This record gives sequence, structure tokens and C-alpha cells, in this order.
Amino acid sequence: MKAVRLHQYDQRPAVEDVPEPQVTDPHDVIVRVGGAGLCRTDLHIVEGQWASRAGVELPYTLGHENAGWVHEVGSAVEHLSPGDTVIMHPQATCGLCRACRAGDDMHCSGTSIFPGLNTDGGMADFLKTGARAVVKIDPRLQPADVAALADAGLTAYHAVKKASPLLYPGTTAAVIGAGGLGHIGIQSLKALTPAEIIVVDRSEPALKLAQEMGADQSVVADGNQVERVKELTDGQGADVVIDFVGERGAENDAWAMTKRAGSHFVIGYGGTVNVETIDIISTERNVVGNLVGSFNDLAELMTLAAQGKVKLHTQTYPLAAVNDAMDDLDGGRLQGRGILVP
Amino acid sequence: MKAVRLHQYDQRPAVEDVPEPQVTDPHDVIVRVGGAGLCRTDLHIVEGQWASRAGVELPYTLGHENAGWVHEVGSAVEHLSPGDTVIMHPQATCGLCRACRAGDDMHCSGTSIFPGLNTDGGMADFLKTGARAVVKIDPRLQPADVAALADAGLTAYHAVKKASPLLYPGTTAAVIGAGGLGHIGIQSLKALTPAEIIVVDRSEPALKLAQEMGADQSVVADGNQVERVKELTDGQGADVVIDFVGERGAENDAWAMTKRAGSHFVIGYGGTVNVETIDIISTERNVVGNLVGSFNDLAELMTLAAQGKVKLHTQTYPLAAVNDAMDDLDGGRLQGRGILVP
Amino acid sequence: MKAVRLHQYDQRPAVEDVPEPQVTDPHDVIVRVGGAGLCRTDLHIVEGQWASRAGVELPYTLGHENAGWVHEVGSAVEHLSPGDTVIMHPQATCGLCRACRAGDDMHCSGTSIFPGLNTDGGMADFLKTGARAVVKIDPRLQPADVAALADAGLTAYHAVKKASPLLYPGTTAAVIGAGGLGHIGIQSLKALTPAEIIVVDRSEPALKLAQEMGADQSVVADGNQVERVKELTDGQGADVVIDFVGERGAENDAWAMTKRAGSHFVIGYGGTVNVETIDIISTERNVVGNLVGSFNDLAELMTLAAQGKVKLHTQTYPLAAVNDAMDDLDGGRLQGRGILVP
Amino acid sequence: MKAVRLHQYDQRPAVEDVPEPQVTDPHDVIVRVGGAGLCRTDLHIVEGQWASRAGVELPYTLGHENAGWVHEVGSAVEHLSPGDTVIMHPQATCGLCRACRAGDDMHCSGTSIFPGLNTDGGMADFLKTGARAVVKIDPRLQPADVAALADAGLTAYHAVKKASPLLYPGTTAAVIGAGGLGHIGIQSLKALTPAEIIVVDRSEPALKLAQEMGADQSVVADGNQVERVKELTDGQGADVVIDFVGERGAENDAWAMTKRAGSHFVIGYGGTVNVETIDIISTERNVVGNLVGSFNDLAELMTLAAQGKVKLHTQTYPLAAVNDAMDDLDGGRLQGRGILVP
Repeated sequence: MKAVRLHQYDQRPAVEDVPEPQVTDPHDVIVRVGGAGLCRTDLHIVEGQWASRAGVELPYTLGHENAGWVHEVGSAVEHLSPGDTVIMHPQATCGLCRACRAGDDMHCSGTSIFPGLNTDGGMADFLKTGARAVVKIDPRLQPADVAALADAGLTAYHAVKKASPLLYPGTTAAVIGAGGLGHIGIQSLKALTPAEIIVVDRSEPALKLAQEMGADQSVVADGNQVERVKELTDGQGADVVIDFVGERGAENDAWAMTKRAGSHFVIGYGGTVNVETIDIISTERNVVGNLVGSFNDLAELMTLAAQGKVKLHTQTYPLAAVNDAMDDLDGGRLQGRGILVP
Repeated sequence: MKAVRLHQYDQRPAVEDVPEPQVTDPHDVIVRVGGAGLCRTDLHIVEGQWASRAGVELPYTLGHENAGWVHEVGSAVEHLSPGDTVIMHPQATCGLCRACRAGDDMHCSGTSIFPGLNTDGGMADFLKTGARAVVKIDPRLQPADVAALADAGLTAYHAVKKASPLLYPGTTAAVIGAGGLGHIGIQSLKALTPAEIIVVDRSEPALKLAQEMGADQSVVADGNQVERVKELTDGQGADVVIDFVGERGAENDAWAMTKRAGSHFVIGYGGTVNVETIDIISTERNVVGNLVGSFNDLAELMTLAAQGKVKLHTQTYPLAAVNDAMDDLDGGRLQGRGILVP
Repeated sequence: MKAVRLHQYDQRPAVEDVPEPQVTDPHDVIVRVGGAGLCRTDLHIVEGQWASRAGVELPYTLGHENAGWVHEVGSAVEHLSPGDTVIMHPQATCGLCRACRAGDDMHCSGTSIFPGLNTDGGMADFLKTGARAVVKIDPRLQPADVAALADAGLTAYHAVKKASPLLYPGTTAAVIGAGGLGHIGIQSLKALTPAEIIVVDRSEPALKLAQEMGADQSVVADGNQVERVKELTDGQGADVVIDFVGERGAENDAWAMTKRAGSHFVIGYGGTVNVETIDIISTERNVVGNLVGSFNDLAELMTLAAQGKVKLHTQTYPLAAVNDAMDDLDGGRLQGRGILVP
Repeated sequence: MKAVRLHQYDQRPAVEDVPEPQVTDPHDVIVRVGGAGLCRTDLHIVEGQWASRAGVELPYTLGHENAGWVHEVGSAVEHLSPGDTVIMHPQATCGLCRACRAGDDMHCSGTSIFPGLNTDGGMADFLKTGARAVVKIDPRLQPADVAALADAGLTAYHAVKKASPLLYPGTTAAVIGAGGLGHIGIQSLKALTPAEIIVVDRSEPALKLAQEMGADQSVVADGNQVERVKELTDGQGADVVIDFVGERGAENDAWAMTKRAGSHFVIGYGGTVNVETIDIISTERNVVGNLVGSFNDLAELMTLAAQGKVKLHTQTYPLAAVNDAMDDLDGGRLQGRGILVP
């Protein structure tokens, strides 16, 4: 089969023939890939930023945002059948540790694999993963349409779900960053909560799109964004601030926009949160970390997708054009998420 | 009556005769003071640090940790009678805003008073406050024994109560700072949760006392405290870290001791929390602000006190000896909390 | 002023002149009534069903679902001004007991009044209540449009809010009874949760209206309603069943429609819940009581009304036509809720 | 090896030689049994009450409360090693459905086994189960001491854990039934909550033992138990009532003892809960179902056992004496739980 193989760091991957994966463990699942999302993390993998952390041996196949149809299952897999439409949670977890048993996949303390990062991924005709990572979805969903929800979308949804108990009628959620994650975040907020949504971004077209997706107010990040959010919230700030940027000052804005007794959710990264303890305690505010999401979160997001409540802008490329897609992503020419279709 | 009056900033208060407070509003309550806690904040008030923030006109009476017996009530007060043993929540809140109605007194957005800070306090024979601030307690409790729970104790209890849903059997709570608040924190942890408690402090006698109060493990803060807490927690850190110090490096230790997916509770202040966003998200940890506590929190803490589950070390002084007490506090000679008894 | 006065049980009230209410307590609020909802409970009051329970002396003024504009406030009321558009929580609570302080108004253990039930109500030009019962609302809302949300709407919203943490994407809420409360329930479910909503009622026109308000599926209560709900839920039943009927078999249907590990919310009454303990434990299901709602709940519902997310069908009558309105209600000729407008 | 085999319903099991179980699936775990609890359910199994429900083919080995040491593991089991001290969750679940992934083992919708009920159990030298059912415990715990916590203890702990957020200082928990489950319930309440505990039972010696285990008050169930509990709670009833009996009137007492806005937890069964909907809504009380517990619950209970916070009274019998043990249980001569030791 064809696969996007990384042979050397700092050198673009090649599309080449490799043997199809085979079922070797009773819990293995082989998926015929319908779409593999291209993510900025893939560029970082190529640059070698993950080399030491992932500890993977080259060459290997990229692709950690995968959806498709079940092709073959191991002998112990009873809940999936060939032909089922599926999306893959990025991490195939142990299912045995306390975290897995509490539905907290990202904190699995056992043995887990992350295809596309530390083993062969989904930019290929077929992908092998473990049964615990496979979410069965509505057969009317097209894998190429939803693949990018597997990681980017899941991350946004997870943070919104954690924030949702704080967002009753009359509260405000400020979303910093109206890119791919931000769009899923806004749509998830709309689906899960009655909060008023303020979106903050540098780009006016991005803000316009955000409003089409449900944002109630938009604020241009022109240097006055904190004041503007305060004006829109009676001088108080937002009950919840969800920061999809996390660098270049957004991380400071996020805290400054957070209302007394409110919470600042960190998702984007690169910067540093720096707050005086007296500022934390005198206002009783919180900083909340967020990391991808659980299998059940992904299943819920797929329900929203099947109900038409969450949509993703995508641009498809044939597998063979992976490097065009990477060029477009790197060059800022990609509108929405890039999806490789085998 | 006698009262501890502050006439000028940077000059010690004087004990002098003033008129007894009178009921002027139907919701007023006059309390015969049984004990008024002396707190480091009182030293800061004398130094003028609160001058601009409190906006109080001098002279006025100090004392914001008060307990005693009801002396007289306004016409609208039906739930209190002269002779009732009571402790005062430090803030007499409006009872009308959303925060008050959600049991979140410290975020009252209406008109509230803070006796001893922005109006006459309890270092006197009598104190006037509002009915909403008065907690009726078990008559077997001595006001002088519990007065310091009104603010310091309440702050510790509130943080522990917020942390308690995270502390199931098998988890660990690390307490940084085994002083007055730390002691209440440890006893509250013991009463409310089955968590293993590790206490961290520079002083070996303080650690010894902490163990008597229920700490399971103690760690001397000698520079290796983070490593030591990690050793005691299988290299993971504590599920919850409650930092009663918040300065001089404790705020960094607190974060470093916090387990993946855990929470760092900030109570002490003076320092700065400084964490990279990648560190926040890759471990999904939280920083949680804490501010005093609610009226219901104080009532619960008084139940624990009546049940003998929470005790406070105190040293009493007659009202006239307020400056000796301040000298002892300032000079580090005060064991436990100082209580002025009229 | 004009007021609807009940002089004798089992005899219709009369509209007559009475003196305007006066501020006598510093926390009193006099409201110029803009709309007073007519409720089946008013018929029961006239019939004398509440005589012993309410303990009110006749004659008195009916009306417990009231909205209007502030006319005059007592000396201690700072957060309201004449002209403010307001709706009244049915119970003016003490603000001092644990329940009030935990935002749980309906379980106030202090002294509270319930205008229209145990003291003069709002079917009049002016109403006197306590400051704690007054919710300030968006001035663009018309009191006559929202008055019936004060009690009936609040009850539906409160139950939905309690159920909302159970209703993530992919879950189902079944609503039994598509009348006035049911409509608010459906709209509240839509605003607060992503659940699929199944509505069950005997009347096809009521079901049609329910679908316009957001129900995803409708089931005619023709004897096969339990089977039909099971069919619509893969044979499992609904995660949450909200029973606005509570009698004539609906209370049994509600339990039978509840999924394993799900919850049956009781709101309507008249019947009896009768379930074997082995049935409760082997499926781990719950029966959840619901009683009106809190002040904060009402404020949230008013936010939804101001945002256009919750609407009520009403039919207005002049105050003088109270008995026509009662006839229409009694005779089943009232579409939506009847509102008396002074 | 020796095993307790049931050959025919209504006929006592025989102890006989059978082949040792073998690893056939990569996730299999073979445990050397250290103790197998004897439970009233075993008598019911022998009587054939579970015949149709369990659908097991005779003969098979009894025993569903098992603890011991790992003997051999399948090729995919990495987190367990021969020699590990372990206790078995009664249900070996699929690990793939939403319930398993939410830590809700008892509502597993996939394929699961229940050794001792629907496949060979642990009254034998060796037991085969799935890796997902095996809880690794402190090696200082003796399997024979804790085996009965696997099912009976877990059921009590699970209910207490669900109730614990309702039990803050000043609240009361009433426990009906001071038998084996009740004892674990009382100790768990003591470990997890600061609630005052009232225990209700017919037997004075049982009440005495309950007080040694931490009950604060005891009430003889002599017909006045509801009034007595009300007297002990200022006429209000208990915030939480945990009914370990569920029949012969206890189920009615439980509801009648439950405070306004409180919750009645059903665990014991046999009777019927019968409450008018008006009674449910006018007091806003709840009835809460409870079914065994989760794997994580069992792990937490084992932590409490290792910390000495939960102890069980047991009486051991050699495997060969299974019928003596059954006679003693049936004849009411068994003090504490009976444990078979191979």
C-alpha cells in the first residue's frame, strides 16, 4: 500500500509502497483510511522536534488524526465489524490503570501507543491501531470530513466540556483565537452552554467566520482587546476565558480578561503564565490546564458532528500530494484543515 | 466601654473609653466580645498598608476575628437572642446579589462591611455587626478559644473543602506551611478526607506539632523538599498541594510538587506563580485561587470545633495588653494565635 | 387601587378598591404590577384547598406570578430603583438560614412570605414584597409576557437545570406533558443541553407545538408510549425523564421509560411512585424530587427570556375580567397562560 | 486442584478434583486463591434462584468474592506479576463501552463475565479471570481477611462514596442495618465524611458493635425508630439515609427518616418503595439506586483496608468444610462473614 514515510528529520517525507499492516494481537484493528488530518505538529515532527520525546525508529508513517472504515479485526474484538465507519482517538490506551478506568485517557499510566507519533500512523491506505482507540460513528459521516476532529477538535471540545458547568445563562465565555480549534470551541460552546460568546482574534475575516459559527461578539486583537472584553462585560471580564493561543501575549490577556472568581483555560502554548499570588487569591481566580480529551469526549463530539452542530472547514489533497499540503500549511495558504485522502 | 483605637498610621493603637455601639438598623446585632484574634494583618493595618484600600476614617477600633455573645438585636432579627454564643464572619454581606445567593459571600457585589478593617471592629467590650455575619455556635464553645477561626481558620477550611472532592482514598495532599492556617488545614483534611497528608515546613518543632494534628508524613524544607515529596509519592507528586506560604519559593515548590492532572491551591501570597503554558497543558494541572470562605463554611468549621475535630493553640491577653500582644507577634514570641479578651 | 379580593372560599373573588400598600419595613419594595399570571393553583385557593395550609385571613388579594416595575423602595434597598422592570420570585425568604445562603430558597427554614398565597398578592395595581424576592430584568421585557415564568416557568427551568449535568451529546431526555410547564422545559433543555428531546402527550396539537419549540421526537400517549420511547432509544429508555404530569399513570410511565443508571424527575403530582427495591438497585436508577426553583434560577430563566430562547404563549385579560379568565381556565378554553393586566 | 462444584440445583455442592485453569487468552489471569467469601447469594444459587438468569451450565465452581495471589498471566498482561497480592472485582468487564470508559463497571454494555455466577468462581485452589478485574493490593493484606470486601464491602463503599458530597460537617447519615454491609458502610462514612452517624437495627449487640466501628448514635428498631431518628435530628430527619435492608418495612422507614431536600439510598432489596408524588415534590427528596461498585471503588476500599480504616469480622473454614459453612450461614450461626480458605 501507499504510505507517507519519514526517513530522516529535517527532510520531507516520501510517499512509497509498504506492506499492509497485519493483525497480530487479538485486540488489533486494521482501518482503511478515509482521511488523515495534517496538523502543525506534523511539521514539527519532520523538523525533529519530537525525535527524543517520541523515541520512534525511522522510517515510519505519519498521521495522527485519522478516520476511515474498519477493514479487519483481531479475534477478541467483538464490538466492531468490517465496514464500520470509525474515527480514531489519537492514543490507544491500556484500559487497566486508574486513569483509563476513570475515563481519563490522556493520563493513562500504562502502556499506550500514539500512531503517527511513536508508531506508524494514518497517512496511508491502511492503519493498525488498538480496539480501545476506535470510535464507531454515524455511517453518514464522511471520514475525510471529520478526521481532523480526532485531535484538534477533540482538544477544543474537551476544554469546553470542562468549562460548561461554569457557564449558566447570563455568563460569558471569551475565546481567544478563531482558528481551527477556536471554531470547534465556539460551536461546542453553542451546543453545550447558553453562555454569551466573545471571540478575540487579530484577523477580521477569522472573526467574521467565527460569528457565522455562533460567536455573539467579536473583538479585534489590536492592543485594546482586554479593555474591549471588559467593556462588553460591564467591566468585569469573562467568567471563562478559553485561550487557544497561549503565546505572544495571549496568555497574559487571557488572565487579564478573566472575571473575579472566574477561570482561565489554557490550551494553546508557547508562552508563560505569570501572575502574582496576591492577584490569584484576592480575586479567587483559577488557571486550568487542558490536554487533548478522552475517548468518550471524542464520541460526544462525533454525535455533535452527526447532528450537524459542529462542522469543520477542510481542504483535501490526495495522499501523493502530502508535500504540497505541507507547503500550503507552512506558507499559510491552507484555509481550514488539510486532509489527506488515500 | 474599652476599645483598641487606631489614631494614626505607624503608631500603635491605644486602649481607651468610647461609647457603646447602639442598634440603629433593624438588622443590627450588638455582640459582647468574648475574644478578638490578633492577626498579622492588624500589624499591617497599623503600618498603614491598608489605608487607601480600606478607606476608613481614623480613629477606629481594630479587630476582625471576633466571637462572643449576642447582647442586643435589631427589630428585624428573629433568629438570634441575647445570650447566644456566636462567631462573626468577617464580612457582613448584602444578601441580595447573585454571589450572596449562591453562598459565595466573598464575592458579594453589593454593599458589605468588614468590621476591624473598614469600620469599628471587635477589640472592644462590644461590637456592632449585621445579622447576616453572625454564626450561632454551640454554647459549650468558648469565644476566646474559637475567635481566630473566624478568618484564619475559615481561610484554611475553605481551601480544604474545595479540594476535598479530589481527595479519595489513595490520594495525597501536601500542605506547605505548618503555622496557624496549616494546622487548621491539616485538621480539616483529616476530618473531611481520607487523603494521606504530607506537611512541609522549615521548622522541625512545627512539623512535630503538625504530626500530632494528623499529618502522616513531614518534610523539612531544607532545599530538597520537592524531591522528598516526590519520593513519598512514587515520583508523582501530590494530587493536591495547598500552599499556605505563597512566597519565598514556596509558590514554585507547590507547582513542582503537584502531580500530573493535580491541583495547586494558592492561599499564602507575596510571590509570583510563573509556569510555562506547555507545562500546564502537557500535564493538565491547575492553579486554584482561594479567598477566605463563606458563612456556611464558617458554620461547618464551628461544627468541627464543637465536635473536637479542630483545635487551635491560643495565647490570651487582656484587652489592655494589646501592645504587648503586638510586640510578641512582631517579635516571633507568640506561640499559636494571640487572642484579646475584654 | 383595584385588587382581586377573595372574600370567602368557594366563591369567586371580587375586583374592588383597596388602599395602596405602603412601605413599612426598610426592605419593603412596592411594585406597580404589569402582569399577574393566573394559575390552576388560584382555582384551588378559591375552592379552599389551601385554606388550612396557607393560614391567611380573608379577604386578601390573589396572584403569585407577578411582574412589573418598581414603584417605591424601603430605606435599606439600594439595588433597586423606581422604574426598574422586575419579576418576583414567589417566596420572599429570610436570607439568613443555611438554605438561603446556599442559594436554595425553597428550603428556607426561617420566616418567609408567599404573596398571593399567605399574604396579599399581585392581582392588583400594586404589590408589596420583600427586596430579596425581586429579580431585576431586561427593561425590554414586558411584565405581562413573562409574569407566568415566575412560578410555572421557574419550576420547569429548575428541574432542567438539575438534570443538565446528566445530558451530554448522545443522551436523550423524555418530557412527559407538553403543557405550559412542558413548553418551558423543552425550551430550557434546548438552551442548556445538547440532549435529544422526546416529548410525550395525549394531544396531537400539543405535540405539534412542542416540536416547534424544539422537541426532536414526539410520542402520542395512546397506551403504547413506553414502548415507543424505548424504540426511539434502542430499547434502553431515556437517560432523563422529566414528568410534568405525575398522575393518572404518567408517574409509572416515567419510571418505565427511564434507562438503566438514569433518573426520573418528578414535577407533576397527584399519583404515587411505586417501585420494587430490586428494580431500583439492579438498574441503579434514581427518583428525583423538584420544587419550584431558586432566585438565581429565576434570574437565569429571565436571561433566556431576554435572549429570546424561552417564550411563553399567553392570553391577557384586564384585571376586571378575572372571573372570565378563571372561567376560561376552568373550562379548558385558555390557550397558553392567562395573564391579568391591571 | 480442589474446587467447590455445584452439580445440581437444590443439592449441596461437592468438593472435588478438577483440572487447574489454563491461560488461553492473552488477557487471562490465573490467581491462587487465598480466600473466597461465602455469601447469602451462594445459598440462593444452590437453591436455583439464579439458574435462568445466570445461564451457566452445571457443574461449575462457586465463589464470587475472591482474593489471592497472581499465579500466571497471559501474554498481554504487563501490569501484574506472579506473586502479586490481589482482590477480584466481581465483574470482568469489556473495557470498551462508554460505561467501562466512564469508570462505571456495573453498567458495562459489552461482554463481561461474573466468575462464581456465570462461569467458574473462586472456591478452589485457582481461579481464572480477566486482567481488567484484578486489583493489586498492599502485600501486607491477607487475602482471607479482605475477600468479602470484593462484593459486600464494595457495595457498601460505593453507596457511601456517592453520598459523601452531601455529607458536610453538621449533617447526619442514618444507616439502616448493622450487619456486614452496614459495618463497612459505617467505617466508610467515618473515613470519607464528617457526618454524624446514626445506626438503626433490631439487634442490640449489632448496635453495640456498630458503635465500636464509629456510629455516633444507635437506635433500636423497636417500632419507634423513625420517631427516634427524628428526635436525634431536631425533628428534621437525616440528610442521607442508607438502607441496607430494603424490605420488611425498612424501605418505608428509610423514606420517612429522610430530611427535606435529603436523599434515601437503596441498597437492600425485597420490599417496595411507595411514595406519593406530592410528598416527593413538596419536600424535594430523592431516592437513589445503588449497584455493587466500580473497579476504582474497590481499589479505594482496599486502600482504606490497608490503612486499617476498614476492617471485617470473618470466620474461616477450610475449602473442604464448605457445607459446614453453608449450614452455619443458613442457621444464623455465622458471626461476621464466612471465608473459605483453600
